[in-house]
Amino acid sequence: MSDNTGHPWRLLARLREQSPLVHCITNYVAMDVTANALLALGAAPAMVHAAEEVEEFVGISSALLINIGTLSPAWVEAMMLAAGRAASLGKPWVLDPVGAGATAYRTRVARELARLGPACVRGNASEILALAGASGRTRGVDSTQSTDEARDAAVELARELGCLVAVTGEVDYVTDGASILAIRHGHPLMTRVTALGCALSATTAAFLAVERTPRSAAAALALFGMAGEDAAEGAPGPGTFRVRMIDNLHALDSASTREARISAF
Amino acid sequence: MSDNTGHPWRLLARLREQSPLVHCITNYVAMDVTANALLALGAAPAMVHAAEEVEEFVGISSALLINIGTLSPAWVEAMMLAAGRAASLGKPWVLDPVGAGATAYRTRVARELARLGPACVRGNASEILALAGASGRTRGVDSTQSTDEARDAAVELARELGCLVAVTGEVDYVTDGASILAIRHGHPLMTRVTALGCALSATTAAFLAVERTPRSAAAALALFGMAGEDAAEGAPGPGTFRVRMIDNLHALDSASTREARISAF
Amino acid sequence: MSDNTGHPWRLLARLREQSPLVHCITNYVAMDVTANALLALGAAPAMVHAAEEVEEFVGISSALLINIGTLSPAWVEAMMLAAGRAASLGKPWVLDPVGAGATAYRTRVARELARLGPACVRGNASEILALAGASGRTRGVDSTQSTDEARDAAVELARELGCLVAVTGEVDYVTDGASILAIRHGHPLMTRVTALGCALSATTAAFLAVERTPRSAAAALALFGMAGEDAAEGAPGPGTFRVRMIDNLHALDSASTREARISAF
Repeated sequence: MSDNTGHPWRLLARLREQSPLVHCITNYVAMDVTANALLALGAAPAMVHAAEEVEEFVGISSALLINIGTLSPAWVEAMMLAAGRAASLGKPWVLDPVGAGATAYRTRVARELARLGPACVRGNASEILALAGASGRTRGVDSTQSTDEARDAAVELARELGCLVAVTGEVDYVTDGASILAIRHGHPLMTRVTALGCALSATTAAFLAVERTPRSAAAALALFGMAGEDAAEGAPGPGTFRVRMIDNLHALDSASTREARISAF
Repeated sequence: MSDNTGHPWRLLARLREQSPLVHCITNYVAMDVTANALLALGAAPAMVHAAEEVEEFVGISSALLINIGTLSPAWVEAMMLAAGRAASLGKPWVLDPVGAGATAYRTRVARELARLGPACVRGNASEILALAGASGRTRGVDSTQSTDEARDAAVELARELGCLVAVTGEVDYVTDGASILAIRHGHPLMTRVTALGCALSATTAAFLAVERTPRSAAAALALFGMAGEDAAEGAPGPGTFRVRMIDNLHALDSASTREARISAF
Repeated sequence: MSDNTGHPWRLLARLREQSPLVHCITNYVAMDVTANALLALGAAPAMVHAAEEVEEFVGISSALLINIGTLSPAWVEAMMLAAGRAASLGKPWVLDPVGAGATAYRTRVARELARLGPACVRGNASEILALAGASGRTRGVDSTQSTDEARDAAVELARELGCLVAVTGEVDYVTDGASILAIRHGHPLMTRVTALGCALSATTAAFLAVERTPRSAAAALALFGMAGEDAAEGAPGPGTFRVRMIDNLHALDSASTREARISAF
């Protein structure tokens, strides 16, 4: 068995054994599907955003997700506190810079958060380009660029921030600034269901709680994409697809020998 | 082919070609189903509510939805800013005055928003009556009156505000204050799933981004209702019905020759 | 027919006849599934949280649910106002102290709310232990203890607060401080779907609007659990399970003679 065959599944087995508590400060649209994706996978989600308690909650969590999809000043304050605490405790946290580049406010907030020591930034091409200061064009929360166009910016950003950067789209790339992994999984229907990218960021946080490596982030992307491929088979539309996506995250068999399409780029 | 046969489907084809970005400032309960309905239909949703960025975001959007379901002062401030900007840019925006008439606060906010130049107000009978200053009785967010009882108030309100008014229920009416279109589609199970009326308001915004006419709003109501009729067939309950509703918004065939039950009243 | 055979179903029939308006101040994650569960069951949900209107809204509601899952100071203020008004109007309100014990902030807020005259507190073992001042250990929002370990604390808490306490898990207990009812329904898949416990608290509020007795709370727990058992049959995973759960709440047959597993403890 190649490492791609074994490693993602071994991580999944460890995730289910540990059931990492993933503290999510995420957008309103994504909360339901994110919590259900994490539960289906075997992790334990908790949505907690009050400045009065986020630092304490980070202390009992295994990983933190910060997603700026529906940001506002009070939430940003809590995000900063939580991110700072996670970094100081050495706990992995993932930044999902939703819509960075769409408005000055969210670009600025995304950049401020990115400086607080995330373990990984996960975004679409437009968001990663915007965060890297390149000419990222975005249209609302959708990318208008391919991940190939953002690959160099991702490497640059990873070096600058000293963290992993995952840029996802038709092909996903994970980089630590030195090398690049390409992940080829997923299905176009995934873009017709809201917040699956957000749920993927939370899934990445859960995997980084188990093992903080580029391969672990790549495993999260690959397994999430596989669940999407399986869910798409015979799905009459995005409603049924979403239901099956959750079923399939649960059904992922950690004893599988299915090969993940992860390769060095 | 009559116009009812061709026009709604032609609009749907154009909507899918243009994929209008619909900026939604909507209630927490409705966000997930609204985003998924818009995506299934072929539009692009974005939920953005911070006063710091709503005006900029209106600038990159094709249409705006404002829904007061879970209003609070900070959100109302952002709603006002966004509505004002949309009106000044000539972009269509839809007001969904959820629960107007239920409390003094939401009745007042709904009326203030209604003065900011919406392209369309979409509500149930109680809400439209409350907004028109008539003796609207409401019970929470449900209407206690039929749309027939609110038809005259809808015409009056459309004249007063200089916009479209859509009052929806067993029979839907769309009026510009001069004439009335009656739309006869939908299914009782739609009232057993939360926030489908909210998703319909967002759908109306998407259609008005394509063509700002009474016929376009009527097309939105008719096609949404058709998806509901199809979803209800053989559905064992409201859980499955909701999933199929999303599937069917996606499956609506813009090359269809199915006749929409839209008629002058 | 034993009382367990008849009483829960008679209450369900009355609930569907009355369709109680349940005012929910609940967490963002739970809103969609809570509203859909109440609608499926036959009640009418409304999510309203602005301090500007909660007291007026309590006045038109049949019952109130307060769930602190995603609390923040502005929401807590509204919770206090709403709870106080419900108590003074003699309307039943249910407290769901999500995550009490996880942080000092939420433990404090849960205790303050508990003093405002709830009709029922519904929580998992860790939350009830934390609220009772016992050494409740929690892990995020999940209980780390069995309901058997929290049964004495539940009785103690019920006496102290003068209200019902429902502690739910593999076996559920309802107590008024004098006697205890044990309810044996449900399925492990219910713990793999987010916010079903929250939806259960809202369901309990709906039943207490119909009849404010320990037996009524027990009926809510039993019927909700039955819907879960039915939903689990043949479900390929938690995605499908959740859809069927809503279908089955709707399908519960108030003319059934199925026996509820409710017994004096």
